[in-house]
Amino acid sequence: MTSEQFKQHTSRRFNEELEHLRTEVLRMGGLVENHLDRAIEAITAGDSEMGLLVAGEDYKINELEVSIDEECSRVLATRAPAAGDLRLIVAVIKVITDLERIGDEAQRIGYLASRLASQDHPHDHYSELKALGEHVQTMVHDTLDAFSRLDADDALQIVEEDKLVDEGYDQITRQCISMMMEDPRTIRRFMDISWAARALERIGDHAKNISEYVIYLVHGRDIRHLEISEVKREVGS
Amino acid sequence: MTSEQFKQHTSRRFNEELEHLRTEVLRMGGLVENHLDRAIEAITAGDSEMGLLVAGEDYKINELEVSIDEECSRVLATRAPAAGDLRLIVAVIKVITDLERIGDEAQRIGYLASRLASQDHPHDHYSELKALGEHVQTMVHDTLDAFSRLDADDALQIVEEDKLVDEGYDQITRQCISMMMEDPRTIRRFMDISWAARALERIGDHAKNISEYVIYLVHGRDIRHLEISEVKREVGS
Repeated sequence: MTSEQFKQHTSRRFNEELEHLRTEVLRMGGLVENHLDRAIEAITAGDSEMGLLVAGEDYKINELEVSIDEECSRVLATRAPAAGDLRLIVAVIKVITDLERIGDEAQRIGYLASRLASQDHPHDHYSELKALGEHVQTMVHDTLDAFSRLDADDALQIVEEDKLVDEGYDQITRQCISMMMEDPRTIRRFMDISWAARALERIGDHAKNISEYVIYLVHGRDIRHLEISEVKREVGS
Repeated sequence: MTSEQFKQHTSRRFNEELEHLRTEVLRMGGLVENHLDRAIEAITAGDSEMGLLVAGEDYKINELEVSIDEECSRVLATRAPAAGDLRLIVAVIKVITDLERIGDEAQRIGYLASRLASQDHPHDHYSELKALGEHVQTMVHDTLDAFSRLDADDALQIVEEDKLVDEGYDQITRQCISMMMEDPRTIRRFMDISWAARALERIGDHAKNISEYVIYLVHGRDIRHLEISEVKREVGS
């Protein structure tokens, strides 16, 4: 093998490793989406068994996080990547932390679903919670999609959308407090519902964080903690 | 300069950079501790002004996170570190994420303090919340101390301690629910108190995460998501 061939070979292998890292993140994301879907289904359908099942499977997400982290460290150590490649790896290290925490929140919702299923089930099947859940599911799905396509514009839209999730959460909390005051016998139930809404709101935060890393990955600019108007100026959107 | 001198010079500079990174993490940790102290003081003393002040200063913590992150990327790109040096940088990237989120929770407690201060103030000055707060403060302080001394044994003890924080949080939540049921006029207040307890419980989780990174840093083993008995076997404690 000539030195040129060797270099090409090395760089092809390196590209494959980076590609594999991205694929693994998307696989972890798919699993997290699946857990979130089932957790929301469990709570809105009052399915205790499904709630416990999804909570009990959180270890699968944790295992993926640890293995991707190890792969990142290995690639950093053996390839000494620079510029965009380095940004990808740093972004992956960050993204999987947020994905793992979305998994934790889905687990929490699973346990709450199981506890709520043993209590009175309202006729409206927790319609507000369901709407908030669907909103958050879309955010998580879209942020993973933006990551896979390296689409900073879509990512920016998701960052903006988090405000709506926060508003939805505030509304549910206010409703819960009204219901509790109206009928104190429902306090336990509405506390659990407000915890579930809080978990969804947190998932929205994590989806937002991931979108911010996508923007960092594409533009090389760290836009966390900036106002949206500043972000648009920074990345020229 | 001979090549040997150049190498020594480079490696001395590199060591200084790593040392500077560690110092910056501890500086960020000190700021986070300060915010947490003031947030807890604000809520237990019913000091609305202090609550808003500490919430409004969260941007200082965020700025430090972004600048340390940038420094990590710069060192990774220019030094291509290996083994222990690489582990330090990966650990720093992870640790500052948790520190930033402790800052977010302190901010949340600050806002709750301000809202609670406008309501009835109980004679016991939220003694249980204060006790939980002190426990969590100690955990955060000790985990930063373990990071600065690279003490994996102390870090492991902090990981174990998180259980007690969870128990303290469960107890406060149960008390809040009892109080709400007894007197529905207190629902709003006790909802806020349970949110504050939840924020403290989350801070305990983040302190635990940081301790796990310290163990990773010292032993090169990722112990997240393992049972304590497994961890002790892994790191031979």
